[in-house]
Amino acid sequence: PNHPKGGGIMAEEGIKAIFEPKSVLLVGATGIKERPGVMSPALFTAIISNMSSSYKGKTHVLDLSSRLSGAIKSLKDVPKKQDLVVLTPPPELALKHIRKLVDRGVKAIVIPAGGYKGEQLEQLVRATVRRGVRVLGPNAAMGVLNTANGLCTTFERGLMPRRGKVAFISQDGDLSAAMLDWACFHGVGLSKFASLGDKVDVDEVSLLNYFAQDDDTGAICIYMEWIEEGRKFTEAIREAVKRKPVCILRGIGKGPERAEIFDAAIKQAGAIRARDIEELFDITTALALQPPMRGDRVAIMCNAEGPAMLAAGAIEREGLKLAMLSDDVKKAIKARYPGIDVTNPINMTTVAGEEHYEFILEKVLADPNVDGVMVINMLKSYLLKPEDVEVVAKAAKKSKEKPIVDVAVGGEDHVLVREVLKDKEIPTYDLPEKAARALKALHRYGQVLGREKE
Amino acid sequence: PNHPKGGGIMAEEGIKAIFEPKSVLLVGATGIKERPGVMSPALFTAIISNMSSSYKGKTHVLDLSSRLSGAIKSLKDVPKKQDLVVLTPPPELALKHIRKLVDRGVKAIVIPAGGYKGEQLEQLVRATVRRGVRVLGPNAAMGVLNTANGLCTTFERGLMPRRGKVAFISQDGDLSAAMLDWACFHGVGLSKFASLGDKVDVDEVSLLNYFAQDDDTGAICIYMEWIEEGRKFTEAIREAVKRKPVCILRGIGKGPERAEIFDAAIKQAGAIRARDIEELFDITTALALQPPMRGDRVAIMCNAEGPAMLAAGAIEREGLKLAMLSDDVKKAIKARYPGIDVTNPINMTTVAGEEHYEFILEKVLADPNVDGVMVINMLKSYLLKPEDVEVVAKAAKKSKEKPIVDVAVGGEDHVLVREVLKDKEIPTYDLPEKAARALKALHRYGQVLGREKE
Repeated sequence: PNHPKGGGIMAEEGIKAIFEPKSVLLVGATGIKERPGVMSPALFTAIISNMSSSYKGKTHVLDLSSRLSGAIKSLKDVPKKQDLVVLTPPPELALKHIRKLVDRGVKAIVIPAGGYKGEQLEQLVRATVRRGVRVLGPNAAMGVLNTANGLCTTFERGLMPRRGKVAFISQDGDLSAAMLDWACFHGVGLSKFASLGDKVDVDEVSLLNYFAQDDDTGAICIYMEWIEEGRKFTEAIREAVKRKPVCILRGIGKGPERAEIFDAAIKQAGAIRARDIEELFDITTALALQPPMRGDRVAIMCNAEGPAMLAAGAIEREGLKLAMLSDDVKKAIKARYPGIDVTNPINMTTVAGEEHYEFILEKVLADPNVDGVMVINMLKSYLLKPEDVEVVAKAAKKSKEKPIVDVAVGGEDHVLVREVLKDKEIPTYDLPEKAARALKALHRYGQVLGREKE
Repeated sequence: PNHPKGGGIMAEEGIKAIFEPKSVLLVGATGIKERPGVMSPALFTAIISNMSSSYKGKTHVLDLSSRLSGAIKSLKDVPKKQDLVVLTPPPELALKHIRKLVDRGVKAIVIPAGGYKGEQLEQLVRATVRRGVRVLGPNAAMGVLNTANGLCTTFERGLMPRRGKVAFISQDGDLSAAMLDWACFHGVGLSKFASLGDKVDVDEVSLLNYFAQDDDTGAICIYMEWIEEGRKFTEAIREAVKRKPVCILRGIGKGPERAEIFDAAIKQAGAIRARDIEELFDITTALALQPPMRGDRVAIMCNAEGPAMLAAGAIEREGLKLAMLSDDVKKAIKARYPGIDVTNPINMTTVAGEEHYEFILEKVLADPNVDGVMVINMLKSYLLKPEDVEVVAKAAKKSKEKPIVDVAVGGEDHVLVREVLKDKEIPTYDLPEKAARALKALHRYGQVLGREKE
């Protein structure tokens, strides 16, 4: 619909109200018939249940069917000045009440419900956006999440990921359910999430601007298929990447011919492209937690040769280089551990424990010939214990200029190490190839920032 | 060492004794000092424990230190005619007893212990290989596994994968521990596994020949770094692929310059190359369970559009094509389900259940314009339940000419579907991109077989 989108300070406050509302009102109708594709009573009660189990703030529930026990039964009993309204009834019912609802004072509305068409969309916009209310949706099927305050306006169960620094924007409701399921299962830490839907107001550009300023967010990832206002979008990326890395996964199934030009434009703007859901979360996590890599020279440290062989191959395939360690660093390592082959990859062998990792990582990080480090842990019968890997996290915390990524090769072993590192600011991977792609992304972001300075 | 390798029928029987022994003798010495890198008493007792917990056949234990309760204390008390001996003492001790051991009748010896050098290797070969005994190792650190009879001569704990049709050969002990950990964690089904070590006798060629004939094996995967007798190896691949697909992951860290020529040669011979551990198991599983794909035209079926967008993009990136469904098939689907968009990818929408999948999959498989099918399942609030996916397995069982791969996008959801399909002969993936790579491998193997016919 043709209408002016929000802007300015008030508009920003509206977006903030979507993720950090002081009060939330959930509006639905439990007495209506189930309608797949639109919002149904079952989904309304699912949102109530999700919110009550995770949200730390105040929530009111308004049941337009006056059935739900404990819920407000009439609009006139709704407390004034609600920051955020989650509007779940089908269009005709929602539109019947929308003006009066906005009259009571509302900063933002999230509309997971779908089915709004033509004149209904116009009516919605007139009653909300035109009156200074920010709207996410309609058809924002998976709603919004904020892991810091537990806000969870999705109707799917059990999709609250752990707290982290990745903000996630999705154009597709279906896929974002699968992607959040992925994030929960694999321990990906998110800051905030939003499902865009039909975008009568809040869109990729508004959220890029907001997340670029958000203190809880270290990097932004986007699943998208297509965007009409491509130039505004690439401009928003160009601005956002000055502050934070932006990664994009594109679904290009039946995409238009212009797709290639568009892809080139977002790359040019500084966004980093991911090949699949896993890589999107893998590299965005690295970018959110680690400093960019300012050169392409990678040191690999490991306690077994096999994984280091795979790592070295992957580093080269990603267009990075194996660092040539400086003589001083080699000497320092040799002086303490004469048995260790100090050619990169540095094989500390099966006897390496906490102290080897700590000492050698410190030397390698201080080497001017090294721009970033991949640390590989093998557990099993090796001397290394999962908790020893904390020294890698400690080194990463101190290292403000050079990124470190950790790899625990395998299945169960990776989970053990991931558990130790989960609240530390270091990403961990189950295969060296994935860590190499994370380093590649960190290098790419280093280039993007370098370009800004020129 | 320069010695004649085994050959002929007896030699084959020796290899068979490694994986399907009628009797196993575990030899170690509990009283000696621990020596990292060589075999230690702790590792000997670990092998005893692994064998006792999983092996279904008869096992004897000989403790050369005469300490272990329940173990045979002297070589002369060892029952005659043991099929397989697992020899764990360090070289000097093992060599002291090896001739007498072989004198009692032994078909094959697996030597996980390392540390054999120069004259020790010669001595070992004279006492065993030259006398018709097949030897795997020394330094075959992770030993052998057979999921059918529970044979487990590895010293690592809990690394017995579930039974399946993939045979796995590894040049590297360290990495194979991580790879078996991966296989166990991700439910990869293996038939047999062998860690090669120093290869005084049994090597890649012997095992390729053996697995190519093995009824429990549907496909063979190999982790390797380098091989001296490259021509013999590529010849063995060329023979093996006539019967079964062969996939290779190469660790190329500090690889020699000749690597590129070698890689071209194994490709030319018909082996399929994997990029990492995950892809190695992913594609080998598909190749073991599904028929090769004889053309490049793929149909995609899904109950949500987003994942299908990713799938379609991945199919194109892998150099495959989206099939143009024939009019008859489109009409048949439309006749039963008027609401479904029959353009490939076929989006059956959120209401699709068991019947949709069953009916449409049957039609699509019968379409002469389709060479293979990717089936995508979204669970969550969709109508589809994990157990409904059994209809996909049923269709796959009937389909002898065209491969089917299944995708349940996500984390927990994928595990739910994997659990339903785990004993069925259909591979399941957590991302459409992985399924596309599996189809690519099935297509590649179709080409390899096609070449054979020319």
